Amino acid sequence: MNKIDVSSCYSPALLHLYDYTESLVVFIDIFRATSTIAAAMGNGAKEIIPVDNVAECIQLGTEIENSITAGERNGQVVEGLQYGNSPSAYPGDFIKGKTLVLTTTNGTRLLHQIKNAPTILSGSFLNLQATANYIKNQDRQVLLACASWKDRFNLEDTLFAGALYEAMGESVTTSCDSTLGALALYQAAKHDLFGFLKQGSHFHRLSKFGLEEDMRYCCMLNAHDNVIQYNGKALIIPE
Amino acid sequence: MNKIDVSSCYSPALLHLYDYTESLVVFIDIFRATSTIAAAMGNGAKEIIPVDNVAECIQLGTEIENSITAGERNGQVVEGLQYGNSPSAYPGDFIKGKTLVLTTTNGTRLLHQIKNAPTILSGSFLNLQATANYIKNQDRQVLLACASWKDRFNLEDTLFAGALYEAMGESVTTSCDSTLGALALYQAAKHDLFGFLKQGSHFHRLSKFGLEEDMRYCCMLNAHDNVIQYNGKALIIPE
Repeated sequence: MNKIDVSSCYSPALLHLYDYTESLVVFIDIFRATSTIAAAMGNGAKEIIPVDNVAECIQLGTEIENSITAGERNGQVVEGLQYGNSPSAYPGDFIKGKTLVLTTTNGTRLLHQIKNAPTILSGSFLNLQATANYIKNQDRQVLLACASWKDRFNLEDTLFAGALYEAMGESVTTSCDSTLGALALYQAAKHDLFGFLKQGSHFHRLSKFGLEEDMRYCCMLNAHDNVIQYNGKALIIPE
Repeated sequence: MNKIDVSSCYSPALLHLYDYTESLVVFIDIFRATSTIAAAMGNGAKEIIPVDNVAECIQLGTEIENSITAGERNGQVVEGLQYGNSPSAYPGDFIKGKTLVLTTTNGTRLLHQIKNAPTILSGSFLNLQATANYIKNQDRQVLLACASWKDRFNLEDTLFAGALYEAMGESVTTSCDSTLGALALYQAAKHDLFGFLKQGSHFHRLSKFGLEEDMRYCCMLNAHDNVIQYNGKALIIPE
């Protein structure tokens, strides 16, 4: 098999520069959507339905049997929802077999933008190697799509893009400066990922809400070995 | 004086995310516009007028006394113009006292976008420290604006943003992930800047045109000690 060509997009506002109609796209929102998704699915959730607003979240929660609703704004569970966005809040004895309806802001918008890609995976440090291994066996070019923060480049999503590229080893190649930059950043930061991210803007914003331990959790490598795919409606573990 | 707050923008397509109406903006187009500008001004050019199309370049060349016209596409001097975009092509015995009318594509568009900023400097590795020293004495927040390549993140402009931030030392601070990323990349690459850039997409494109030595020239630090400012019409050395 030829090497897989990998590109990276640092912001949803730059997605128009990429043609991903035939690509496998990895959706990346490390703090905290794709980390929470990896934790909940890794602990046995049946599926996760991402929605962009609270009203829809509440509505789906009433319609879907054995579901729970979750979402935070500014570090607090949103009024009307049941749980927060913390990846550590979904242990197996709680989430197993349930449908999680999750509001995310940056994340859901990005999923909507990339919805026509033939394959969409949700990537995080928590399921890094599983995601890398899955991609290596697909014969598709790859786009690593960072959710970013309100369209601005962020360190954590970029570092994950670099980590994923590195984890795919000899299977991949790139002619994309964003991917090369992400790889070099990850190689500079990987010996103390959490320490490196402590300087980032998102860390400062979330640590004000007491979420430092949450972010430490999001930096754990390979705590779960599930690939997570978006089927246009829900995030599931592919068969 | 308070520390100077520095932000960085990796692409003209992200400029709308930044408010730079009160900022000093550094215009960065390392391969090769701002490097050629630094070399020509450092070697005694009177001024440089950046234009975005060949017709305007030729027209201004006929109107302005003691001027020369320059511009390349795909590594060749454009038909109708006199010289190329090579920073090494403007030694003092040739350029001293002259007006250089220069076509650039990515560069001129970015200058147009940032034209309302109160101060605009042209930055390159060739005049890195001079630019850093000048900014340290201004009491303005700073935006480092990368020209990029057709709106895509590129390594060389980003590395320069990191180099400039580092060169301003204790005078600056940032809460911008793009600046932190640029700094970390520069610190990872600075011991072999040219070697690092050899993997980049722009290097591959330009080396096909035999421009490798040009790019090596663009990576020289502090060959000139001139600050270069854009006054809305021309690039000049401020008084």
